[in-house]
Amino acid sequence: METLVVQTPSRQYPIYFGTGILENKEYFEQHIPGDKVLVVTNDVVGPLYLQRLKHTLESSNKLVFSLEVPNGEIHKNLTTLSQIYDKCMEARLDRKSTLVALGGGVIGDLAGFAAATFVRGVPFIQVPTTLLAVVDSAVGGKTGVNHPKGKNMIGAFYQPQAVVVDINTLHTLDDRQLAAGLAEVIKYGLIRDVAFLEWCEANIERLMKRDPEALRYAMYQSCKNKSDVVSADERESGIRAILNLGHTFGHAIEAGTGFSTWLHGEAVAAGMVMASEMSYRMGWLTKEDVGRVESILSRASLPIRPPPTMTLEKFMTFMSIDKKVESGKLKLVLLRGIGNAIVTGDFPMDVLQETILYFQKLVLSHPEQYEVPLASQSL
Amino acid sequence: METLVVQTPSRQYPIYFGTGILENKEYFEQHIPGDKVLVVTNDVVGPLYLQRLKHTLESSNKLVFSLEVPNGEIHKNLTTLSQIYDKCMEARLDRKSTLVALGGGVIGDLAGFAAATFVRGVPFIQVPTTLLAVVDSAVGGKTGVNHPKGKNMIGAFYQPQAVVVDINTLHTLDDRQLAAGLAEVIKYGLIRDVAFLEWCEANIERLMKRDPEALRYAMYQSCKNKSDVVSADERESGIRAILNLGHTFGHAIEAGTGFSTWLHGEAVAAGMVMASEMSYRMGWLTKEDVGRVESILSRASLPIRPPPTMTLEKFMTFMSIDKKVESGKLKLVLLRGIGNAIVTGDFPMDVLQETILYFQKLVLSHPEQYEVPLASQSL
Repeated sequence: METLVVQTPSRQYPIYFGTGILENKEYFEQHIPGDKVLVVTNDVVGPLYLQRLKHTLESSNKLVFSLEVPNGEIHKNLTTLSQIYDKCMEARLDRKSTLVALGGGVIGDLAGFAAATFVRGVPFIQVPTTLLAVVDSAVGGKTGVNHPKGKNMIGAFYQPQAVVVDINTLHTLDDRQLAAGLAEVIKYGLIRDVAFLEWCEANIERLMKRDPEALRYAMYQSCKNKSDVVSADERESGIRAILNLGHTFGHAIEAGTGFSTWLHGEAVAAGMVMASEMSYRMGWLTKEDVGRVESILSRASLPIRPPPTMTLEKFMTFMSIDKKVESGKLKLVLLRGIGNAIVTGDFPMDVLQETILYFQKLVLSHPEQYEVPLASQSL
Repeated sequence: METLVVQTPSRQYPIYFGTGILENKEYFEQHIPGDKVLVVTNDVVGPLYLQRLKHTLESSNKLVFSLEVPNGEIHKNLTTLSQIYDKCMEARLDRKSTLVALGGGVIGDLAGFAAATFVRGVPFIQVPTTLLAVVDSAVGGKTGVNHPKGKNMIGAFYQPQAVVVDINTLHTLDDRQLAAGLAEVIKYGLIRDVAFLEWCEANIERLMKRDPEALRYAMYQSCKNKSDVVSADERESGIRAILNLGHTFGHAIEAGTGFSTWLHGEAVAAGMVMASEMSYRMGWLTKEDVGRVESILSRASLPIRPPPTMTLEKFMTFMSIDKKVESGKLKLVLLRGIGNAIVTGDFPMDVLQETILYFQKLVLSHPEQYEVPLASQSL
């Protein structure tokens, strides 16, 4: 078992990484002030782990309620949020009741936002069951839901009391989910940690085979990198935005495909390649650097091209309402060398458009390089 | 013009009290960082003041959008909130855009919660147009919406950039609205400021006649009292709860009558009398003290009895899911002498039940003392 203590201006909390710790009440009990707990999960993760977690919490004499919502990013909306509120009311939760998110990033965002806003804030514990949720959502306090016209447009910054990562839960992830998580792991190497990128390049096969030690190191190192960035900038006013490498392109892909076919991590992978290509066109990366980014992502079985349906017009439409847009000025995360991400609005719009057109042409002329992801199985 | 600077741990902001300041761009411009503004108002206040405010904001070269939502507490829900988000998306607001609430407490709570959660928080300015909204909502950062099963169950703590109170807007308030605001003004005297209570007793007729100087003093003094309490306890963990004198009883009345007939301030007035009666039964007030509370509220044309439909069962049902309930223990705000409110869970349940039964009997036996409020005209 390993613990990373995350420092933020508003709170300090532990992330526990361990094997089988879902069944160990010590990691939960000390972070639950009241008598009542509501576990929010989905209809894929619930059948696997809910009874085990309930049993653990009940052994601390907690009154445990649970709610299974439908699985998938398309359900990360105000309707599902409203169902969580209904359950909170039905269970008569109060300000000392605790919400527990058992599932992937969608469940964490939904339950976290419900926790941030039910009676203006109740304690919250995250139990992420996907690699992506661990490395992307366990640090940073972002919670929220999608609006039909844009991802994560409604939300709050809200820190958990604790995050409990049971490495055993990653064994039930399908390969595609695992790869989607690796996209974010690799991201930390690309934006600020070349040594970790080299470690990933040397250990990608171990990670793909779910070696517990390799997974634990990758998760710890990812959360540590994220924590270092976030603790300097909790409310995303500056440097924190480097965490969004590939995300502006990626969000456009997700939105443009209706949030139903691409996994978030897959869209980010293709987006990171697009950001790298654009950085090359800005003169900041070599063509070899771009090849290095494509190589590690390919080895992790991730898509490195946007889908053919994503025309220039679609990209421009969905990028212009992304939250990174401030007063009409589009800002992007680009690479000034591998391991050195910057946030900038200072680029010719032509270079952005040429980059998008380059990929569209490439994809249409080499359809064999491009595999359409299946419908989302997001946990 | 007078300015009260409100200090909270997370922010400092001014409340401007003045006559005609809705038309003075100075009070807005310095608090609006970006180019876009969305004014949220309702279909009663909008026709009166929206064009004037838009003109003021446009004279600062802001791009001004507006949304009129239906008037009334029954629309303070997730559906109306969702309409505000839709408008934010349609107007392509971003993190530097500002939301302005033009209206009473309902509009302030709705627009404030939208501001707290749209792209995880945008700047927010309050322009309260009712006495109640000024003295109850301009300080404290509470925002939110109702759940069908409980008032204000969903929300966030979120501080505005500024509050602009144009005393002229109070002239269009109907008498019933004015009285509802006076209930909260009187509350500050009862909970912690006997000198101010005496001033209210001496000046209640001036307030009822809307003397601008008297209103300004009452509003300033109310906000100052609230600010003193809140700055010591921003997140309502302790002493701040004294601000809820009469509110637990009052919320039960509002909920029990479907949030459609009683104004919030009217319910609080009856609730303060109930809390006073219970304090008397605890041996903490004299019968004369209770009479003093009834007298000042009656002089302000406020109800001092709950409605005959509020049975003991209804009170108990609606009080037990109030947010003041922590882990099953009901806490109430009671008076240990006039001007000295306390928060306590330490009372025999019998005394609470006897108090409620006393009022039920009183109301049923003296129906002539009890006037049913008309349907809500809440701004």
